[in-house]
Amino acid sequence: MHRGTLNFLWSQKVQHKRNPQLNKNGELIHLLSTEGLSKQLLTHILDTAENFVSISDREVKKVPLLRGKSVFNLFFENSTRTRTTFEIAAKRLSADVINLDIAKSSTSKGESLLDTIANLSAMAADIFVVRHSESGAPYLIAQNTAPHVHVVNAGDGRHAHPTQGLLDMYTIRRYKGDFSNLCVAVVGDVLHSRVARSDIHALTTLGCAEVRVVGPKTLVPADMAQMGVKVFNNFDEGIKDCDVVIMLRLQNERMNGALLPSSQEYFKGFGLTPQKLALAKPDAIVMHPGPINRGVEIDSAVVDGPQSVILPQVTFGIAVRMAVMSIVAGNEA
Amino acid sequence: MHRGTLNFLWSQKVQHKRNPQLNKNGELIHLLSTEGLSKQLLTHILDTAENFVSISDREVKKVPLLRGKSVFNLFFENSTRTRTTFEIAAKRLSADVINLDIAKSSTSKGESLLDTIANLSAMAADIFVVRHSESGAPYLIAQNTAPHVHVVNAGDGRHAHPTQGLLDMYTIRRYKGDFSNLCVAVVGDVLHSRVARSDIHALTTLGCAEVRVVGPKTLVPADMAQMGVKVFNNFDEGIKDCDVVIMLRLQNERMNGALLPSSQEYFKGFGLTPQKLALAKPDAIVMHPGPINRGVEIDSAVVDGPQSVILPQVTFGIAVRMAVMSIVAGNEA
Amino acid sequence: MHRGTLNFLWSQKVQHKRNPQLNKNGELIHLLSTEGLSKQLLTHILDTAENFVSISDREVKKVPLLRGKSVFNLFFENSTRTRTTFEIAAKRLSADVINLDIAKSSTSKGESLLDTIANLSAMAADIFVVRHSESGAPYLIAQNTAPHVHVVNAGDGRHAHPTQGLLDMYTIRRYKGDFSNLCVAVVGDVLHSRVARSDIHALTTLGCAEVRVVGPKTLVPADMAQMGVKVFNNFDEGIKDCDVVIMLRLQNERMNGALLPSSQEYFKGFGLTPQKLALAKPDAIVMHPGPINRGVEIDSAVVDGPQSVILPQVTFGIAVRMAVMSIVAGNEA
Repeated sequence: MHRGTLNFLWSQKVQHKRNPQLNKNGELIHLLSTEGLSKQLLTHILDTAENFVSISDREVKKVPLLRGKSVFNLFFENSTRTRTTFEIAAKRLSADVINLDIAKSSTSKGESLLDTIANLSAMAADIFVVRHSESGAPYLIAQNTAPHVHVVNAGDGRHAHPTQGLLDMYTIRRYKGDFSNLCVAVVGDVLHSRVARSDIHALTTLGCAEVRVVGPKTLVPADMAQMGVKVFNNFDEGIKDCDVVIMLRLQNERMNGALLPSSQEYFKGFGLTPQKLALAKPDAIVMHPGPINRGVEIDSAVVDGPQSVILPQVTFGIAVRMAVMSIVAGNEA
Repeated sequence: MHRGTLNFLWSQKVQHKRNPQLNKNGELIHLLSTEGLSKQLLTHILDTAENFVSISDREVKKVPLLRGKSVFNLFFENSTRTRTTFEIAAKRLSADVINLDIAKSSTSKGESLLDTIANLSAMAADIFVVRHSESGAPYLIAQNTAPHVHVVNAGDGRHAHPTQGLLDMYTIRRYKGDFSNLCVAVVGDVLHSRVARSDIHALTTLGCAEVRVVGPKTLVPADMAQMGVKVFNNFDEGIKDCDVVIMLRLQNERMNGALLPSSQEYFKGFGLTPQKLALAKPDAIVMHPGPINRGVEIDSAVVDGPQSVILPQVTFGIAVRMAVMSIVAGNEA
Repeated sequence: MHRGTLNFLWSQKVQHKRNPQLNKNGELIHLLSTEGLSKQLLTHILDTAENFVSISDREVKKVPLLRGKSVFNLFFENSTRTRTTFEIAAKRLSADVINLDIAKSSTSKGESLLDTIANLSAMAADIFVVRHSESGAPYLIAQNTAPHVHVVNAGDGRHAHPTQGLLDMYTIRRYKGDFSNLCVAVVGDVLHSRVARSDIHALTTLGCAEVRVVGPKTLVPADMAQMGVKVFNNFDEGIKDCDVVIMLRLQNERMNGALLPSSQEYFKGFGLTPQKLALAKPDAIVMHPGPINRGVEIDSAVVDGPQSVILPQVTFGIAVRMAVMSIVAGNEA
């Protein structure tokens, strides 16, 4: 697939200004981004997830909502962890799950992305979970697939990671209740983070009182202020009196060029230590999408400390993905 | 495994002249080739598939026919697409599916093919779906496996790809009805195509009025005429007044040596364009086993045009594989 | 993960002298080693396996004992064969199975073993099946995982392979009945064999009359006599009048340095031929954990001969793994 073509198609789409995630009745048929979803719809997803959280505690962690449905994990970019969460979520909904190692498949024989998708649709697929290194790929797929197929974005380029954004919202709501009085700081490598974008859109829509973006100038995009957030290039000021601190993974493997002096330097400036965390509200919670770089963006004492809700995030992530898949497939609890 | 040994064992087999696909009562216990199956048996498979086509349209696309059965996908040659179709088919029959990445397994530790097979049989396997780069490997496995195991050939060397052949037959019957008045052209890289062989055997047995093989001399085997088909080295003549045009994939990756000047040259001579297709009957259907090389053996306008049934082939392929697996396992609908 | 750290943690554990496999009531909650399990417990596992052997013969080879449970195959060291046996066993218990290709996952992004484990636990995992190249890794995981997770060791370094040990015990009991009159010889590359260790501990606990270790000096550890076994460096003497001969795989791929002159030399000295086998009791059985090196540690005539129970071992292995998983999960038949 030409990068040029894909970007072109996607920009066209964005210019059309219609929301490809919803059908004519305003119901969610694809989950591509938290951007453009109403407060009501986001809240509905979180409420649905609430029901699924309790299922994981049951003796039999399974409901028959997607029995006989076929869920395809299409990971054009490898991510064992995220793929696993979707696989578990789908299996607990009783769906049949097919994992496709796309790198090895027909696309490498010269078949186009859209021909691959058309083929899989013809196998009577119900849900495509799509991870792709290029922003917009899940949109392209959603726009071109058969009407019986629902697309869930599992991370596209630097653009969006909506299920991570939603599980973060679920976690915040669970621990902090209403968003209208909260101050949430998103800290770190915002430039490369699809999680940051998905969090910010969702927080804004859900009426979060104050959303902050905190990081060194080289890792915070210039246009951030336009998204309705406050930008801080000083960690102490950025974290002060916050209710929620969302630490981002330092994407070492993505950095080309010298955006940072070294990871030790980074930790000095923006690593979350117990001392730094003391600047936030005493009952502030600490979140992280994982995998964690201990000693790089976050200190082990914080990861394993009483304010960390990093592992509950993982648990809620399964419930949120169950909610999303059952909603887009039209088979809610 | 020695190539020599395998070829020797297989030739022995062919000389014995008994059909290893059938039990003493003439029932299908393995599907190794469309060659040697009676018209009655082929028709029975297509009729069984008919029942399964409707299942894919249901809310719950699952039947319990193979519940508790273990289906092993043994892909000695990688093919994500074909493996996926068998995996879906088996799961919709409620079987447990185990995908074995054979390249990484014990065979690379020096264990022989037959020892690997004996081991998997001992795990109480029910069906082996076998893809192998060597012609005859599925026969060897079928002859040496325990009696409770059924072998389905998912493509062996240049020899056979019987489920593709059967889904092609199903597609033709679905769109054209009776075979006795039809002219079917198989076009392209016949030399390297196991699909072509499986199609030709099935078409002949089902009483197809005229089977044509169309391609450049370098890509059509010399012995084709013996199979009861008409050979055309001119595309215009070969396609003229046909009811069905089966385009074969140009197996770029298989060609050793200079059998073709270039893919552009090939397209000029044997690429299916709307202009060429106009030479066939006005209601002719166009088929292709996929993955498609757009602009090499077939023009995009034809792939996406009204006479193309390429995607329905994929859909019917699932039903045909469900039919084959349920029949060999003795658990029909 | 630092090798040093892991080894340190594990030695600490061993020094504590408490058995991490049992809960306060003495019930099996993890299977890490056959060492330290009582005769009563080993016998209970074998008795439970007895029930599952018959399931593999049924039309529907499935029981709902682990329905809704999530079994994760965590193979830090690749082994398609062993992974497959656990996958089948779990699916026949109706569990959801997730295979994790750990080599490709977050551990390679710098996440620690324990963070990976904590994450997977947070997904409400029930059973981790762990294969690791380092001795002690499954202990470390069992000690640090959440209480709802049960760990089954599928082979760690040179330390233990307890399900193989148990299936060997099941096989011996099945063919020979009571252990108290038996002479069992474990032959070959004992030095590198976790199977040998697991067999010896289990045989000793089950009251086997005589356990022999047979192999060249370079492949038999010096401390073997301390384990209560008789060491033989002469094959003829070692095999004489035995009831059971367990041949070990010659771990070619593990040998660093010149422990052996050549595999031909090895076969001359310690390869099991029909002539050598004639030295054992006339009704002696021959076992091998697989994969077999025909002509290296064992002659083909013995593998395929009437005294070989190598394939039944594989069949019983599924039942034993079903027994182990249902017992540790607290859902017995």
